[in-house]
Amino acid sequence: MSESPPIVVPRGFRASAVKAGVKPSGGLDLAFLAADGPCAAAGTFTTNRVCAAPVRWCRENLPADDVRAIVVNAGNANAATGAQGEASVRQTAERAAALLGCEARQVLIASTGVIGHQLPMDRIEAGLVAAAPGLSADPESFRTAAQAILTTDTRTKIVSLQHGEGAGAYSLLGIAKGAAMIGPRMATMLAFLLTDAPVWPNDLQPILSEAVEESFNCVSVEGHTSTNDTVLLLASGAASNDILRGDDLKPFADMVRSACRTLAQEMADDGEGATHFITIDVEGAADRDEARNLARAVADSPLVKTAIHGADPNWGRIVSAAGYAGVPFEETELSLWINGVSVYALGTPTAFDASALSADIRANRDVHLRLLFSRGDASIRFWTCDLTAEYIRLNAEYTT
Amino acid sequence: MSESPPIVVPRGFRASAVKAGVKPSGGLDLAFLAADGPCAAAGTFTTNRVCAAPVRWCRENLPADDVRAIVVNAGNANAATGAQGEASVRQTAERAAALLGCEARQVLIASTGVIGHQLPMDRIEAGLVAAAPGLSADPESFRTAAQAILTTDTRTKIVSLQHGEGAGAYSLLGIAKGAAMIGPRMATMLAFLLTDAPVWPNDLQPILSEAVEESFNCVSVEGHTSTNDTVLLLASGAASNDILRGDDLKPFADMVRSACRTLAQEMADDGEGATHFITIDVEGAADRDEARNLARAVADSPLVKTAIHGADPNWGRIVSAAGYAGVPFEETELSLWINGVSVYALGTPTAFDASALSADIRANRDVHLRLLFSRGDASIRFWTCDLTAEYIRLNAEYTT
Repeated sequence: MSESPPIVVPRGFRASAVKAGVKPSGGLDLAFLAADGPCAAAGTFTTNRVCAAPVRWCRENLPADDVRAIVVNAGNANAATGAQGEASVRQTAERAAALLGCEARQVLIASTGVIGHQLPMDRIEAGLVAAAPGLSADPESFRTAAQAILTTDTRTKIVSLQHGEGAGAYSLLGIAKGAAMIGPRMATMLAFLLTDAPVWPNDLQPILSEAVEESFNCVSVEGHTSTNDTVLLLASGAASNDILRGDDLKPFADMVRSACRTLAQEMADDGEGATHFITIDVEGAADRDEARNLARAVADSPLVKTAIHGADPNWGRIVSAAGYAGVPFEETELSLWINGVSVYALGTPTAFDASALSADIRANRDVHLRLLFSRGDASIRFWTCDLTAEYIRLNAEYTT
Repeated sequence: MSESPPIVVPRGFRASAVKAGVKPSGGLDLAFLAADGPCAAAGTFTTNRVCAAPVRWCRENLPADDVRAIVVNAGNANAATGAQGEASVRQTAERAAALLGCEARQVLIASTGVIGHQLPMDRIEAGLVAAAPGLSADPESFRTAAQAILTTDTRTKIVSLQHGEGAGAYSLLGIAKGAAMIGPRMATMLAFLLTDAPVWPNDLQPILSEAVEESFNCVSVEGHTSTNDTVLLLASGAASNDILRGDDLKPFADMVRSACRTLAQEMADDGEGATHFITIDVEGAADRDEARNLARAVADSPLVKTAIHGADPNWGRIVSAAGYAGVPFEETELSLWINGVSVYALGTPTAFDASALSADIRANRDVHLRLLFSRGDASIRFWTCDLTAEYIRLNAEYTT
């Protein structure tokens, strides 16, 4: 997952990024994504009660059919910043709108970084002014934008997909950040999806919501929901004048789902300090919520995550994590496989070669846990990573 | 909290402990607590759906007014062991009952250790036979028993309390284990409380349940609820023939509460790898459940725990953890203090000396977080510890 794919830029979009001086490191920290014309737009956001000012701004202005830009800064989350934080968002949108010749409400904003500090507005405004002339449809400008939204991520997260050829063809480009649901001093997972597919605004939100439900909502690094989580999808419609309807929406929805899954998996794989990428399949649950609660309890257990880090097929930690998920199952309804090896069947331990399984875990970055219940037909696929001393170092060795 | 207090053994109880060979280390691992006569008994247990065979056994046989013994082994949790695990518990109880001359149902059982392995019954039975002749009311035998129930704990956890003098006097002795709600390969927190106070069985359970609610249920190390959590309270009544009733029960209930709190705090303080003991006060919540959910979200956040390990007054991590607790508060309803320093007031950051606060956290093992809401009158005090690389090492560097 470490190689960035070749990029096809959907028609109607340009990007630029600069070093605005928000990150203490002095790196790229301001991304400007602009549309040539009005775009249909949809978004999904954090469920945290403490949510960032830019999240409030996007919620207020979405859904919309005339979005013109997304401005993203890294290095400062503009979260828990009170009324001044709200004013900063408005000021950012107004400055970008002036540069593009549109209204402030047509500019969406996202931030990631330390919580509780006011945005340095002089730097943000100067950064926007410096970025605007560089707006370009060149793939390289989108790679640079993908770089500018990162915090503790070790690599950019980009997905580029195409559908069809010739007249009806359209494409989708997505970029994301997130080395944890929250990083050290930084909060957030962000993802921005751009497409030239011609989609009605009313169709866009359900397609995005559904895709997010089974991608970003199925990832956890340490279970700490950020204040800034934001996924935005902009459709320029530049690919065609024939709006997609009915069955023609299906390949587009599949594309959005595929893009979200790819980016979500890359987040878990790039989890802070991670040495293992863990896929958890929960099957046979009574309903989707139940499946999610079971998967999340396993994914978030520090004891499961440290066991996998230590290549320990300590399945008792896995079944006991499922046991406190709030799902009223009986032990005899549960069977468990680790990397395809049966370790627990219908409530009873299975005889297995623990040292061979340990060697298998040690030798492979990918680990697969399958929990099969006999409660119903619902299932979920969930992704997480292991918990390492490097995670502790990254998150403890920082002083405000 | 590291010094064991002088012990007063409540009348009517004896203890013994041996090295039965269940722990791979070869240390003390079997504790036998016996009552001279029938005791009123109450218990509280894990809420995990995957619960150990001894937990099922105790649940079946409680409440009771004629309990004669508690047998505890460390090194094997006898959890997720199916029908064979149930048979092992019965066999253990039967063997102990034969040694004491009572029925199996009068013997309570608790286990702690690795999940999913069958108990070595030959060793357990031989251990019981070896332990029985050593049963003694000497304080030293209870200290040895407190040692035998430990797993990764770095020290024994003992509380000894007395009430009154002369004829009406009674005492309570408690021992516990738990270096985490779950330890590496070991599951569990266990606590055993013995008293000679004359209390009706019907009064004993509510007194214990209430005490557990605000002690053991307010502790978290990493949030992984064990399969074996067990708290048992035995009352021999040997102190007096005058049963405690009405207002006379109040000092006894206070004693139980105090004992549970002391042992619970010692567990968090002895959390695996911990360098800080953290007290979290949530005040002004709408109800007790709300207060608990808020406190638990903060206590279980790896980002809050690593920040405190790093002496970082990164309060954004604390308010954002509260934000995903499932409590529908507004940011303007929340204020936060760290070690008495206001860092966030009614939804807005406070100006404070971050380096002085960091130095204060670094210099002291005790850390105090106070979250004040303006939603109601409910409050809770919760205890946890920080998350360190040593925790990762303890839990990863083990292979089954």
